[in-house]
Order: sequence, then C-alpha cells, then structure tokens
Amino acid sequence: MSGAFIAVDWGTTNRRAYVVDGGEVVATERDDMGILSVPSGGFPAAVAALRERHGGLPMLLAGMVGSNRGWHDAGYVAAPAGIADLAAGLATPEPGVAIVPGVCRNDEHRQDVMRGEEVQLLGAVAAGLAPADALLCQPGTHAKWAEMRGGSLADFTTAMTGEMFALLKAHALIGPEMTGEVDATEHFRQGVEASADQDLLAALFGVRAAAVLGRRAPGTAGAYVSGLLLGSDCRARIVSGRIVHLLADGLLARLYSTAIAIVGGEAVVVDSHASFVAGITRIWDMTS
Amino acid sequence: MSGAFIAVDWGTTNRRAYVVDGGEVVATERDDMGILSVPSGGFPAAVAALRERHGGLPMLLAGMVGSNRGWHDAGYVAAPAGIADLAAGLATPEPGVAIVPGVCRNDEHRQDVMRGEEVQLLGAVAAGLAPADALLCQPGTHAKWAEMRGGSLADFTTAMTGEMFALLKAHALIGPEMTGEVDATEHFRQGVEASADQDLLAALFGVRAAAVLGRRAPGTAGAYVSGLLLGSDCRARIVSGRIVHLLADGLLARLYSTAIAIVGGEAVVVDSHASFVAGITRIWDMTS
Repeated sequence: MSGAFIAVDWGTTNRRAYVVDGGEVVATERDDMGILSVPSGGFPAAVAALRERHGGLPMLLAGMVGSNRGWHDAGYVAAPAGIADLAAGLATPEPGVAIVPGVCRNDEHRQDVMRGEEVQLLGAVAAGLAPADALLCQPGTHAKWAEMRGGSLADFTTAMTGEMFALLKAHALIGPEMTGEVDATEHFRQGVEASADQDLLAALFGVRAAAVLGRRAPGTAGAYVSGLLLGSDCRARIVSGRIVHLLADGLLARLYSTAIAIVGGEAVVVDSHASFVAGITRIWDMTS
Repeated sequence: MSGAFIAVDWGTTNRRAYVVDGGEVVATERDDMGILSVPSGGFPAAVAALRERHGGLPMLLAGMVGSNRGWHDAGYVAAPAGIADLAAGLATPEPGVAIVPGVCRNDEHRQDVMRGEEVQLLGAVAAGLAPADALLCQPGTHAKWAEMRGGSLADFTTAMTGEMFALLKAHALIGPEMTGEVDATEHFRQGVEASADQDLLAALFGVRAAAVLGRRAPGTAGAYVSGLLLGSDCRARIVSGRIVHLLADGLLARLYSTAIAIVGGEAVVVDSHASFVAGITRIWDMTS
C-alpha cells in the first residue's frame, strides 16, 4: 500500500473528497462545489485550497472535473477497460494532481461515454462487493448499466432516465399532473407494469387522458411516470432471473430495486461510496 | 342536403373556417386565432364576428374550442363512436352555434382522449377516402392512431411524439445537438432503424455520446432524433404489411410515410381538409 492521498469524486453539482491513508478513509468532506460552480480559471485555486486543508497530500480526481467542461480534459479509454487501463491513462494537469480518464464505447453501431462512474464500477468488483462477472447499475440523471466480465468493464449503456423525468415534470403537458411524492408505491409499481407495453410515448400521454377523465387520483402521477421510465429502462437491460448489483442508496435504491424485481430481475444493493474508495485507491496504488 | 352553414376546425393555435353550402365548400378562411389567443370571455364576440363575415349562417365548431380550456366544454362520447354519436352529443352554447364533442377511450386498463381529430377520422371513411375497416394516423404534437371498424371509430391511441421532439430540442442535454433540417433523409432513416432496439432512453443519450466522440456529423441529429421518435411511435402500432391511412401533408406526410415503410407498413396519404369537411357536413346533415 502506497502513501496517503486525497481522492475526489468531482461531479457536475457536488464534490466529495476522501483522505485515504493505508487503504483506509481517515477524513471525508462533501460540498456543492461541483464543476458548474467553479468560476472560469478557478480550478487551480479550488484544488490548492482542498490540498491545503488536508496536509498538502497529492490528489487523484475523478468525474466531470476531467471533462471538456471541467478543469482539464482527461479523455476516455475504450471499453473493455480495467483498473490498470485507467491508471495508465491518467492526466496530470499540475504536479501532484492527476485525473482519471472516462471510459467510452465507440464503434460504428453504438456510442456511449461515462466519466466518474467507472471508478465505482471497477471498485465494486475489485473490493468484492460485486462479482467479477456481473451486471451493475448506477442510477441517476443518466443511468449507467455496466456489464463486468473478468473484473473488467466490458460494455455499458447509458439511459437518460432521470433527465427524462425532470424534463417531463418541468416542461411537458403532463408536467402539472406529475405531483405527489415519488417512492416505491402502488402507483410506481403500476407504472413499471405499464412499461411492459413498450410504448412510452403513448403511456405518457395516457397520464393526461387519465387526469382529464378523472381516472387518476391527484398526487399519484409523479410516482406512476417514474415507474414508467424506470420500468422502460430496466426492461431494456434485464432478462428474467438476472441479478443486478445496484450502486445506490435511499430512494433511488428503493425505486430501482422495486422496478428490477417487477421486470423479473433481482437487485443487490452495493455501497457506492465504498466502491469509489476501493476503485480510486487501487488506481492510486498502481501509479504512485 | 340541408342548408348552408359555417364549419370551424378551432384548435389550440389555429382556426380554419369553411362555408359549406349544398355539401360544397364555397369559402374558406384561416387565421391564428386558436383558443389560446382568445381573451377570457371573448368567445361570443369572436364567434359573432366570424358569423357576421359569412352572412350570419349557423355554425358547427369542432376541436379544442370544445374543451375545458376553450369556450364551452362539449364533453366526450365513448369509443366506439360514429358520426351519429357525435351528432347526438352536440353542445349548444348559444342559439345557432353547436360544438362537436370529443371522443374518449375510458376503461380500467387504458384511457385516451381526442378532440377535433374525430371529425377528420370519421369523415375520411364517410367520404370513401379510407376504407370502413382501416388504421388511420393523424400525426402531430400528439399523434392520433385510430382503428376504424365498420366505419366507426372503434379504438385509438395517442402518442406524444411531436411534443417529445419539441421538449428534447428545447430543454434536454441533447437539445443543442439537435440542429439541422428535419426531413426524410438518411439520418432520419437511421433513427427509424435504431428504434428497433426498443430502448428510447438509451438511444437518446447515445446522441450526446456520438457528438462527444465525434461520430455524428453536425446538423444531422435533429433528423436522427425525429426518426427515433417516429420509429418508436410507428413500431408500437404497426404489424408488418399493415396499411396506414395518413391524414397529413407536407413534411409530416413525408416523415411518417418513410417511417411506416421502414417498420414494414405501407402509408396511403389522405387529404385531411377534405376529410374534415366530409365529416362535419355529415354531422350537420344529421342535426339540422
């Protein structure tokens, strides 16, 4: 095990830092200084402040900080990719600071990209939290589904599930109907069941029709639409009996676990923070 | 054939009036005075002005003017519905003026509504522009697909195809990529082909990934996303060899004809204005 370092999961809207020493997390901090809140040219100062708070230790960054909208474009390594490929592809914007590259899938038929999730996905397997051959899912604005083979990130698909919910709620004709708490309720389950029709564009309009005809109780359509979207997402990726290792907690873990079960799969919830620390520590150990 | 009357297709953003005498259209006018541009309480004056311009003839209105956001809620008749059902369900907000009701589909399993399209759909069949047993499609913001049986509107489905395109273009992460002219180009066809994967949420994110990875030429994603959406819409409703009578012209007719052919159907374009006049004239003849 190499020396202590600061690991940072630096996303679009949030940032989470871990001081790792001897493979153990000895300090953490979280704030809302995602890349969107860093002023133009402000990354060196933001990085310096973070390092100073934690004894000037070297840093290893992952996530959108390495995108062309972040500090420094760390590029992508092509799937299949393992921890060693990420370690070999580090970008070094300044001495003592490195950024993990993203992973892409880039052939004629289908293109996909991830940045940040690769550390969690590979870390989950490296730490034994998920098997070396497994289907992993990290839900969110852009849900990532990864096929791990032999411990490597073999292939993956991104679905704009969370973004679509937000778009519909904010801007669609059915948006004003999408009230009520979203949780793994009966209405959410109805939405997942309805997604079996593979007809999302019609099912979404049906929310409006049901409201007009007085068929849907107020305050239930938010959960129903969430079920429709998560059901569509899960059905496209899960064959019956498939186990999905879910890098999530709280509400997202409840929603996806429920949807996965309804479409015939089985969810196993994995600690995403422990996965991140496991992944980034292994990258660090390979390079320092 | 009964006396002359003014038929009005009064939608959300446009209004089209036809003076019909002896079954023939003797005058038409079109303006952008859809229901959204009529001030609160302004319908009686708007109707009076229109009548005055056309000799004070009686009027028969169809479309969103009969919704709860229009002048007077004309309700819905339940499918299956024919011309006679619409004629029997007219609302009469003032003497000499009647509004055609919408049609709903309202059972436990699925709800849907239309308002205005029913006149075109039933008129197309009544005028012999489409067979008595046929699948009709009226594309648009909310695409209507109607199963006609024995000349009656037996069942129908609405898909939010056009609205989804507008939402994505205006508000989604992929919106800025959706540039370029939308027409039945090679890129549109690629989108229709890609919709065969039944994985819209992932295919849409793929537009972003393709742009990031330099795989998609600028100015082509608008047509591609249109193809994805229309392809998804058509695949959900067309079995191979099915003939679709398409109430559309111009770009929408080209796009849907192309998508229908790619998914294995065959499109026959029908004159939607002639269909409207045929439908509303038959309703008028039954009631006057």
